[in-house]
Amino acid sequence: MISCGIIGYGFLGRILAKRLADYRGRGLELRMLANSKGYLLLDGDVPPGDITPLPRFRASSPLEPVERGLVDLLVVLTPTNVRTGEPGLTYIREALGRGVDVVTADKGPLVVAFRELTSLAESMGVSFCYEATVGGGIPIFSLARHSLMGDRIISIRGILNGTTNYILTRMHFEGLPLDLALQEAQMMGLAERDPSLDLEGIDSACKIVILANALLGVDKRLGDVKVRGINQVTSDAILAAKELGMTIKLVGSIEGDRLSVAPRLVRLNHPLCVHGTLNAIEFKLDIMGDLTLIGRGAGESTVSALLSDIEWILNRRAYLRGGR
Amino acid sequence: MISCGIIGYGFLGRILAKRLADYRGRGLELRMLANSKGYLLLDGDVPPGDITPLPRFRASSPLEPVERGLVDLLVVLTPTNVRTGEPGLTYIREALGRGVDVVTADKGPLVVAFRELTSLAESMGVSFCYEATVGGGIPIFSLARHSLMGDRIISIRGILNGTTNYILTRMHFEGLPLDLALQEAQMMGLAERDPSLDLEGIDSACKIVILANALLGVDKRLGDVKVRGINQVTSDAILAAKELGMTIKLVGSIEGDRLSVAPRLVRLNHPLCVHGTLNAIEFKLDIMGDLTLIGRGAGESTVSALLSDIEWILNRRAYLRGGR
Repeated sequence: MISCGIIGYGFLGRILAKRLADYRGRGLELRMLANSKGYLLLDGDVPPGDITPLPRFRASSPLEPVERGLVDLLVVLTPTNVRTGEPGLTYIREALGRGVDVVTADKGPLVVAFRELTSLAESMGVSFCYEATVGGGIPIFSLARHSLMGDRIISIRGILNGTTNYILTRMHFEGLPLDLALQEAQMMGLAERDPSLDLEGIDSACKIVILANALLGVDKRLGDVKVRGINQVTSDAILAAKELGMTIKLVGSIEGDRLSVAPRLVRLNHPLCVHGTLNAIEFKLDIMGDLTLIGRGAGESTVSALLSDIEWILNRRAYLRGGR
Repeated sequence: MISCGIIGYGFLGRILAKRLADYRGRGLELRMLANSKGYLLLDGDVPPGDITPLPRFRASSPLEPVERGLVDLLVVLTPTNVRTGEPGLTYIREALGRGVDVVTADKGPLVVAFRELTSLAESMGVSFCYEATVGGGIPIFSLARHSLMGDRIISIRGILNGTTNYILTRMHFEGLPLDLALQEAQMMGLAERDPSLDLEGIDSACKIVILANALLGVDKRLGDVKVRGINQVTSDAILAAKELGMTIKLVGSIEGDRLSVAPRLVRLNHPLCVHGTLNAIEFKLDIMGDLTLIGRGAGESTVSALLSDIEWILNRRAYLRGGR
């Protein structure tokens, strides 16, 4: 039985914990729940209903069960800090270093220390999976790993932030000014009270860094991305674009060595031109041509990314054991 | 060294043969080229330039090298007959029955005998791959196999025929009547001289049958699909849709047990609403929500599907040998 722990027990953690109750037959048992303040060990007989809404954690380091060898697979769902990567970075580094498989939805550690963490995982022979960090409801890394083999990625473009895409969509279709569209997004819970990471393009830039490092084998940091947010986009500019059959979208792109995030004109008929909170990513491939994936970027659909990573790890462990 | 043969040496076969020259280092060697009239054995030292444009085939059954055990992996690129499945059906059945892995782009055999062929492959312990049969430049089956694990497909909708989509696109944007748009498509080589399989929705229906059988585990035939083509779609109808922010597309869909192909109203802002010869497929998933893939449906990009299947087979063979 593989023993699984979750650090960061918020919205995603709760849904994931419920879903993992179905995995006991697959050989995976949820053993630990934790946040930055402490942890809780489950004896395996607690029905999933009992671990929600909020369990009482034992005040201690959430890493204690990892250090005691009680966790084989750690899911890190900590809040993101894109400058320091903490606290997720420490948790992931410790877990990988102890031979524990890691799945994360936290962008921070990957933006700050992508190569360090992936090299550590490789040298320890463990899995480090992060499907949930970019386009939560779009299986980007899984697709690239399995389905783009034998082809070559020439460039990548994406609409990777649902909050700004919602705002730009409202500006386009309703003619709202930026500040009103933002207020609306905040009221709907789509934008944070401090929306600067989204509006200034930092969130999109983090995702571009992760995509470039993971799919193109480069070693980029946030400082390598030329970033412009949507703060200066006016409804007049969008109206002018609309008259030409276009609109303005916040587009992240990777072309050769150049990483950028900026408001760009996009043709309304173009596959990349998705609306509302949808995310889209376009791969330009050598043989396949252009392939675009469209899906939800956040929310409950992100749990599918976590589960897909967990499935991958279960299969890999079965394979390494020589099973089928 | 895995010995590979290609039956059906037309447009796709030639591009594939060139690409396979790069696979000798990967342990795959192109050994045979064939069409319905005969075959040619390659000694492995023929540079790819020498096997194009048209080699001289030895007049004989193209299955002879398979029967003589000279082929480990057969790529079947025969012209499609959706009523009989022949001649591809016989080739595939014979090859699988002799323990040969098969990759095909021919829809016919899958529409006529999906369960028979997949069961035969399973009982013989060989691979039978058909990524190229639906949405050539979109890795649909690979995605489903690897990236949708741990989720449940609720329904599928798709724009799966590039020819009719091109015609409907020209009708929408240029106001052309159907017959003129069709003539244009024929002049551009996008439509056959007898375009009835495309226009009547039969090609799309075949793809819906393959999708349903492969992804939802049912056992459907062409007769199970309720099919209506685009013959009755007028530019007036499209114009009326356009005024409401919509257009008319030929949509194939699978909902529960119901398979259908018909012209449907689609919102212009909807991810499924792609134009020109593009294909699109939308999965409605339990956890992930809606996931849409957009790409090229035919032409050279289909070679990427064949190569992806071949890579899968190479990896599976390495796995079965116990290698990494």
